[in-house]
Amino acid sequence: MGWMKDEAGLEKNAANYVPLTPLSHLARAARVFPERDAVIDGAHRTSYAEYHARVSRLASALAGRGVASGDVVAALLPNTYPHVEAHFGVPAAGAVLNSINIRLDVSTVAYILDHGEAALLLADTQFLPLAEQAIAAMDGPPPILIEVPDAAAGHPATGRYTTYEDLLAEGDSDAAWIMPKDEWESIALNYTSGTTGRPKGVVYHHRGAYLITMGTPISWRMVLYPKYLTIVPLFHCNNWCHVWTMPAVGGTTICCRDITAPEIYNAIADEGVTHFGGAPIVLNMLVNAKAEDRRSFDHVVEVFTAGAPPAAATLAAIETMGFNVTQVYGLTEVYGPATECTWQEHRWGDLTGEERAAIKARQGVAFPNMDNITVMDPATMDQVPMDGTAQGEIMMRGNSTMKGYYKNHDATAEAFAGGYFHTGDIAVQHPDSYIQIADRAKDIIISGGENVSSVKVEGVLMRHPAVSLCAVVAKADDKWGEVPCAFVELKEGATGDADEIIAFAREHLAGFETPKQVVFEELPKTSTGKIQKFELRKRAKTL
Amino acid sequence: MGWMKDEAGLEKNAANYVPLTPLSHLARAARVFPERDAVIDGAHRTSYAEYHARVSRLASALAGRGVASGDVVAALLPNTYPHVEAHFGVPAAGAVLNSINIRLDVSTVAYILDHGEAALLLADTQFLPLAEQAIAAMDGPPPILIEVPDAAAGHPATGRYTTYEDLLAEGDSDAAWIMPKDEWESIALNYTSGTTGRPKGVVYHHRGAYLITMGTPISWRMVLYPKYLTIVPLFHCNNWCHVWTMPAVGGTTICCRDITAPEIYNAIADEGVTHFGGAPIVLNMLVNAKAEDRRSFDHVVEVFTAGAPPAAATLAAIETMGFNVTQVYGLTEVYGPATECTWQEHRWGDLTGEERAAIKARQGVAFPNMDNITVMDPATMDQVPMDGTAQGEIMMRGNSTMKGYYKNHDATAEAFAGGYFHTGDIAVQHPDSYIQIADRAKDIIISGGENVSSVKVEGVLMRHPAVSLCAVVAKADDKWGEVPCAFVELKEGATGDADEIIAFAREHLAGFETPKQVVFEELPKTSTGKIQKFELRKRAKTL
Repeated sequence: MGWMKDEAGLEKNAANYVPLTPLSHLARAARVFPERDAVIDGAHRTSYAEYHARVSRLASALAGRGVASGDVVAALLPNTYPHVEAHFGVPAAGAVLNSINIRLDVSTVAYILDHGEAALLLADTQFLPLAEQAIAAMDGPPPILIEVPDAAAGHPATGRYTTYEDLLAEGDSDAAWIMPKDEWESIALNYTSGTTGRPKGVVYHHRGAYLITMGTPISWRMVLYPKYLTIVPLFHCNNWCHVWTMPAVGGTTICCRDITAPEIYNAIADEGVTHFGGAPIVLNMLVNAKAEDRRSFDHVVEVFTAGAPPAAATLAAIETMGFNVTQVYGLTEVYGPATECTWQEHRWGDLTGEERAAIKARQGVAFPNMDNITVMDPATMDQVPMDGTAQGEIMMRGNSTMKGYYKNHDATAEAFAGGYFHTGDIAVQHPDSYIQIADRAKDIIISGGENVSSVKVEGVLMRHPAVSLCAVVAKADDKWGEVPCAFVELKEGATGDADEIIAFAREHLAGFETPKQVVFEELPKTSTGKIQKFELRKRAKTL
Repeated sequence: MGWMKDEAGLEKNAANYVPLTPLSHLARAARVFPERDAVIDGAHRTSYAEYHARVSRLASALAGRGVASGDVVAALLPNTYPHVEAHFGVPAAGAVLNSINIRLDVSTVAYILDHGEAALLLADTQFLPLAEQAIAAMDGPPPILIEVPDAAAGHPATGRYTTYEDLLAEGDSDAAWIMPKDEWESIALNYTSGTTGRPKGVVYHHRGAYLITMGTPISWRMVLYPKYLTIVPLFHCNNWCHVWTMPAVGGTTICCRDITAPEIYNAIADEGVTHFGGAPIVLNMLVNAKAEDRRSFDHVVEVFTAGAPPAAATLAAIETMGFNVTQVYGLTEVYGPATECTWQEHRWGDLTGEERAAIKARQGVAFPNMDNITVMDPATMDQVPMDGTAQGEIMMRGNSTMKGYYKNHDATAEAFAGGYFHTGDIAVQHPDSYIQIADRAKDIIISGGENVSSVKVEGVLMRHPAVSLCAVVAKADDKWGEVPCAFVELKEGATGDADEIIAFAREHLAGFETPKQVVFEELPKTSTGKIQKFELRKRAKTL
């Protein structure tokens, strides 16, 4: 401990200690880069000076509507500019942003509004029925409802509520922001989309949000003035905190309401997008896009992908198209990405195809802003051997980790048992320390006493030329207990032959690993592109 | 303030709160980049695994020698690998690193060793006489003296003391580090080279050191794997904290014991140096180097320069040679650079020559890790108008600001009066918020009641084809009170004509601004390349 013999007079003061908060980035950007493009959403283009002024208006208007420090402001919004502005305007009012997944059902939204005690709700006109029904279904007092129309997207104002722009007009573009006095104050409340039971409210602190914004530019090879496309929903870990990062690097945030191949290609070609994050399904969309939906560009686009390892075939295709793909991995509880598969050209530069994909399939190493992320036996909290074989649970420690679950002491204590955040994900750690998920614990299929990795089986199926997307789950079997069952989305124009696909899989897998059944149909997905395996498990029971 | 209605159970714990420290970067780098080049010093080349192991040895050996947490370990070392290792090994022992300027006189070094109560001193063999004399002149108990030979540089071990490598042999390469339990603990003690009175001991905290390492990559357009050359002395603001930054970005630290044009060019050509910092005198050295001392290279070298604005002629020459120059500005009290003249191509891309240099001569805007840096009237603490004319004092607030001066409450209170760190530098702030130093307060020459900016006069003289370096100070004058007096170093082969230089200056300056006398001689400089104007003022009195 570095306390010197005489530390008198060396205490913290206003000059040498300022609570960490991403709000500081926008305040600085408005001074340093006032005229640069800050937020682009179709015809809406604001400079940093305008962005800052609008955020000040929002913050002061919220205060005028009675939103007090520590109150929760909820949002039911797609990736539009009001949602981006709310990421600064809500905390600048001292309030806590609760971005709610727009795909949720009425009952769950009502639960979240009740549980978070939202004081005000910003709802896109498209999701106004959901908002209204959820408010009607609440037990507690309803939030003030502000309507956020998006006429350009076909959702003009209904006229029934104060609109977002009307709200801003109530504010003051020069209003002072309420900055945190303590960096442990809360900045966001994000409900996990649990597959069972009620969602849990993950609470983010200003400190953690600031620190991930400082680590991300290093991880993402980001120099000043990036152009960032918001494919990751803003209600998903606050867009992996990227909208908070942009002002730190003078970057431009380009909104993406509807995620289609033409929209992404146009943003790359017309706005010069340099960075985006998204699930592998987005990569597939780009690879499989029709010729007329594509645009040419001559720069490299840095892509963070998460949710599942990118398939070798996808990687091989997309990397020749101008995209550099890095897998990241994380959870809502750690502000989005917490590990990255940092590429090391001197180690792996010569690898191609499957071998290259095998490296890029790893979840990798801790972000620079995180501390220790490792694989442990949860019973003993001992690290498992770094041999690429021994399995354990991924455990995380670091400053971009949630405060805990809101009003849920038991779940918080359980998640933090032993001084680490327990991810629930089962992984191995390679000799070079890179982590690789073996399986989500619930994704392991146990067939005849043998563990089958659904990730491994999926990786094989993705190499089949007709397969666009697939998921493998357990199906009950009288003889083996469980057997792998594959659900497959075919590429456009391809026809499916289950026997042929099973034979293909058998060439690359052990008998017990080979799917016994292949079903061709569209896969159920969450709003963030994650395949909903629990739905497939239900479906497998009916086969 | 973002405290939610019910924050119970949301407190800090071991998983979500880890004290910030640059030590974490090296611990991570040893895991992520173990085989990458970490430190290069001539024939000494260590990987990150080896670097980490040697640091562990040093930390545990220090403990074995009785160095306890909070003790001060001093260093009288040039930019060699032991000095780099000490930046991690000393704090990893829980101790505080006190890197002492090797150009100081015996009495001042003795004062520093006494004042800091150094428990142990690492001294390069070249500076052993200084160390021995200083220890002999101390009032208090002497530190343990460890000799750090550098045989390759002509300084083999004397045999009289334990050597650095012997010390490391006492340690354990697997020893656990003592990490800070509180990020406010002290990591370094740096004495300012005050021009009058005794030096003051600036105390750095782990938090501030960590945060500048996260801001620097953004400011310096640094992506993973930079090659960094240590021209800035490690005893100068801990090398602007760059050696602490390198492991965060997997970078290589290349040592530079003697700063000569061939050594710099060789490091760029042979090791691929991508970044270095240095005073403008280093830029002059590169521009004026003989053809046989130069090496060609085909990448861009990013240069941070500080201490004085780079002259237009220097900039114009060096920018065509593959160097991109950014002026930064700071002081020991703010860990080195705190502002940067962030280049904005869309504003200034078309400027050339004097106009381009005029922009690059600004000290600029706050680093991303700092908070508010502005120009204020110290009497009222009001910001002066941002009109490029109104003068005030540069005031700083932010997390990379010292804890205070060690055992000097009055100086600490004075420096932090009004909640800002007072730099003592007089500046204007342009309408675009960029700060520009008008003059160090003591550098203003008052001639016939008019303020003369010595910086302005120097800028004009530097444009004269014969002038390599110059400094302008006040000379007492019966009629005018003070008049500007110029000291000039000529370019190699140039001859000086005082009348001709005065006439040249008169073309660009008002009569009262024009030097009345020009003296041709080598300028006295500090070890960091800053011109010692106080020496020139003394000299001017004798003319």
